[in-house]
Amino acid sequence: MKKKKLHFIPLGGLGEVGRNMMLFGYDDQYIIIDCGVQFPDSSMIGIDFIIPDMTFLQGKEENILGVFVTHAHEDHIGGLVHLFKVVENIPTYATQLTAGMIETRLARGGQLNKTKINVTNAGETVEAGPFKVEFIHVTHSIPDAVAFAIHTPVGTVVVTGDFKFDMTPIDGWGTDIPKLASVGKKGVLALFSDSTNSEKSGWTPTEREITPTFERVFEEAPGRIIISSFSSLISRLQQVTDIARRYARKICVVGTSMIDNVNLAKKLGYLEMPDDSLVTLEEALTLPDHKVVILCTGSQGETTAILGRLSTGKYYAFSIKEGDTIVLSSHPIPGNEEQVSKVINRFLRMGAKVIYDSLWSVHVSGHACAEEMKMMISLIRPKYLIPIHGELRQLTRHKVLGTMMDIPEENIFVIENGQTIVFEANEAKLGPKVPASIVLVDGTNVGDMNADILYQRERLADSGVVVVTLILNRGNNSLVREPKIIHEGLMTEKEMTSYQAELDELIASTIARKNGQKNTQSQEALEKNLEQALRKFFYTTTGRTPWIIINPFYL
Amino acid sequence: MKKKKLHFIPLGGLGEVGRNMMLFGYDDQYIIIDCGVQFPDSSMIGIDFIIPDMTFLQGKEENILGVFVTHAHEDHIGGLVHLFKVVENIPTYATQLTAGMIETRLARGGQLNKTKINVTNAGETVEAGPFKVEFIHVTHSIPDAVAFAIHTPVGTVVVTGDFKFDMTPIDGWGTDIPKLASVGKKGVLALFSDSTNSEKSGWTPTEREITPTFERVFEEAPGRIIISSFSSLISRLQQVTDIARRYARKICVVGTSMIDNVNLAKKLGYLEMPDDSLVTLEEALTLPDHKVVILCTGSQGETTAILGRLSTGKYYAFSIKEGDTIVLSSHPIPGNEEQVSKVINRFLRMGAKVIYDSLWSVHVSGHACAEEMKMMISLIRPKYLIPIHGELRQLTRHKVLGTMMDIPEENIFVIENGQTIVFEANEAKLGPKVPASIVLVDGTNVGDMNADILYQRERLADSGVVVVTLILNRGNNSLVREPKIIHEGLMTEKEMTSYQAELDELIASTIARKNGQKNTQSQEALEKNLEQALRKFFYTTTGRTPWIIINPFYL
Repeated sequence: MKKKKLHFIPLGGLGEVGRNMMLFGYDDQYIIIDCGVQFPDSSMIGIDFIIPDMTFLQGKEENILGVFVTHAHEDHIGGLVHLFKVVENIPTYATQLTAGMIETRLARGGQLNKTKINVTNAGETVEAGPFKVEFIHVTHSIPDAVAFAIHTPVGTVVVTGDFKFDMTPIDGWGTDIPKLASVGKKGVLALFSDSTNSEKSGWTPTEREITPTFERVFEEAPGRIIISSFSSLISRLQQVTDIARRYARKICVVGTSMIDNVNLAKKLGYLEMPDDSLVTLEEALTLPDHKVVILCTGSQGETTAILGRLSTGKYYAFSIKEGDTIVLSSHPIPGNEEQVSKVINRFLRMGAKVIYDSLWSVHVSGHACAEEMKMMISLIRPKYLIPIHGELRQLTRHKVLGTMMDIPEENIFVIENGQTIVFEANEAKLGPKVPASIVLVDGTNVGDMNADILYQRERLADSGVVVVTLILNRGNNSLVREPKIIHEGLMTEKEMTSYQAELDELIASTIARKNGQKNTQSQEALEKNLEQALRKFFYTTTGRTPWIIINPFYL
Repeated sequence: MKKKKLHFIPLGGLGEVGRNMMLFGYDDQYIIIDCGVQFPDSSMIGIDFIIPDMTFLQGKEENILGVFVTHAHEDHIGGLVHLFKVVENIPTYATQLTAGMIETRLARGGQLNKTKINVTNAGETVEAGPFKVEFIHVTHSIPDAVAFAIHTPVGTVVVTGDFKFDMTPIDGWGTDIPKLASVGKKGVLALFSDSTNSEKSGWTPTEREITPTFERVFEEAPGRIIISSFSSLISRLQQVTDIARRYARKICVVGTSMIDNVNLAKKLGYLEMPDDSLVTLEEALTLPDHKVVILCTGSQGETTAILGRLSTGKYYAFSIKEGDTIVLSSHPIPGNEEQVSKVINRFLRMGAKVIYDSLWSVHVSGHACAEEMKMMISLIRPKYLIPIHGELRQLTRHKVLGTMMDIPEENIFVIENGQTIVFEANEAKLGPKVPASIVLVDGTNVGDMNADILYQRERLADSGVVVVTLILNRGNNSLVREPKIIHEGLMTEKEMTSYQAELDELIASTIARKNGQKNTQSQEALEKNLEQALRKFFYTTTGRTPWIIINPFYL
């Protein structure tokens, strides 16, 4: 009899890069959990985003039973459009709001026909081959998020997705703790649990805790209130709506993603925002300032979002003025701190009042902190723990939390993308590695970017580039024309002009001298000598090391 | 009779950029307080650092009585080498350690003869023209830091420099609170006070509070301990030294700046590190692992510092291995979070134990928090408050703290670099603006960088560059040679090759067609048409928008 084996294949979401795509395999049949994008770090110059490596799926297209989505954040659904290019006609399973947001994205790319989305509510179970996937409601910074209890012939595994235990969420719909406990009671082989906030002690405060802060904002604001947050943070929008109505301010929602999400959430019943409390931006601008609250995106300092454009005076519709109160209702994601600071400073310079995370309590995280992770472990009581969603530092910290909860150290796997785990009924061990490099998306180009090109960009950015075009006589390598120097990102035109005579002399003499020394000197040698001479020249005169490209034509 | 007026002229240290250079002027005589550099934010690609704009000093060289330095951090002394190029032969006044560190820097640049450094101890007063500058000891993350009480004919102003109120500093030498109180009691016109941590509530914990954490590190570490911090944080080095001796570990100091500072601090009596507790790196590597602690720089994730090189396996002398315990004894400066995270993840991947700020308490700030700023105000009791050292967000927050301390709002000036203030005996008002733009230093080039060049670098970095060189017949604009395409930072060679035929065709047809349409077409029009055609081609095929440079030669 063939041994029962469950394979866990992480293609994203573990380790330094790559975000949120995991497979479970049994008997050559697979299910996919989430498929997200990640945003590049500052070393990935010019890259739009990163998607998981889907090489592993090649040749297995027929054996993929479905993709199960925990919630509708970009880092969990943003890669679906790429997945459906690789694997066609696999069904998608998601809760109602998640399904709606996926549909919006697929429709934008003309991909609605690429999958059938099966709306599956929390509490329901989907059978897919050897897998029974049970949807369990969890609280997160977007409504209708779920964890999965996946029942397999080898045992049950639990994938938390992104979660926290908010006991008093705005929508009153808490994490289904009884269900998690009941799954745990029946025995769980492995828990795959969100590690994002593992370094933060304690318990993430309830969303409700920030209501008084917003009330204070409305109480004190003399003029317009502009609140920016994530467009999918529906509960935040609900909080603001409720307070705005109490303070008799009209709500104005601006920006495509915010409007799309508000409309969808209203339609599906996740957001109660009566039409008579809403105004268009045109209407808002005609109302008295103290009668308006404007909701928009851009709290991460993104230069292209509405808040970013307002901060530089580049938003077409209106400008910030003294008396405005601007709330950044989010915490800067690591890497965005500088940008967020600039936006804050610019608004202060315009005379606005700016309220942000480090001053007033206007945001709480969507992820569990350390004590909540322990709570999850205590509910599920797994034999094995696999920390997911985080860099090695967070995964490693989650392991420490696991050992505190008496999971033996050898039963906790801190692994990175591509490292598979093989589960049998009573044991787990590391399996083979599969391809899980990062796939960079730049423009419409997917994956044909590599480290060389990023290095080239870094080098270009560091000191600019100089292209020296030479028209030479093929016979004796003498100059037929004056050399032409194109330079970008190096120095001002004025500065270059001041070097022009010296440079012409240097080029001419390098060519002549080298030829003089060695009549049969090769073209390669000539070009190399020139490059060296120019590199030395720029370094000596300016201390900079531009990229020097010799561009010769031999006529 | 001429009215007595004191001018405050901030050239750095207020607002978003430019760090820590301020002038006071009376009767056309000036003193300078500090002259530091600032490190570029991520938008200033390839820039080494930023120095204050010294335009204001031009023509006043004879009237500058001296430069007074609060402490020896780079953001307070790093600009002196540039100052002494602009203004020669002005004396420098600084405490003993500060003087020593300035000398080290000046000696490196062969500038020791450019100034006379007058060692002035805390408690002493220097008379310079109409100014009497009193040195008052304060605690900070470097020893021998001072605040200045500057007595002028108009009244006394106090400049705090960087400070905190550590009641139990490692060296036992606390902020001179009685002196500050006595200055305050006699009446202070204006307080210029450090705003760095104004957004942080409470009181910065004493340096002593982290001693138990370090003891735990030494208690638990099975092998080598590698501790990285700032090389000027002498008290941290003292703490580690004391604990290392108790645990019978030898101390190994590596890296030029760390060794320089240790030697200077030992020589001047600021650091007690007995020679028999020190070993060279060569010796350290022959000792048993549990007998060694290595001190180095790089806790900010700098790729070129020793810790950064260790994290990528590029340090020549040794490699990190399982059993090593690495301590990052600092908090990431905003903008460095990503780099620090990478270093942590890499060490974890190597199997080392990594201890850092967000997990264990291994660092405290060198700056006062909100309650300490209030304490400073309560000691000095100034008529006017001018928040210094910080971005607008921190300055603005400091103003809120000032109003809490009953300073009238109109007596608090939140200003940015270049905005002067004019003080008379009983009033202060905004004065004229003076040049205080940022001066970028790139290589040996100072100040001839501008926004255009930074924009060029950003554009080059974003999608790379394509240079198309064309050799054309001057008579009919036909191609004499095949066009040559140089591309960097755009795509792989393989990808470009796949487009080559299409590109050749596009270039040829654009030239021919355009010429066909209009025989007298100008060279400019031809080049513009080509650029447009190529831009469209790359955008359509790749979604990217490289910088396209047409480089034509007409023979």
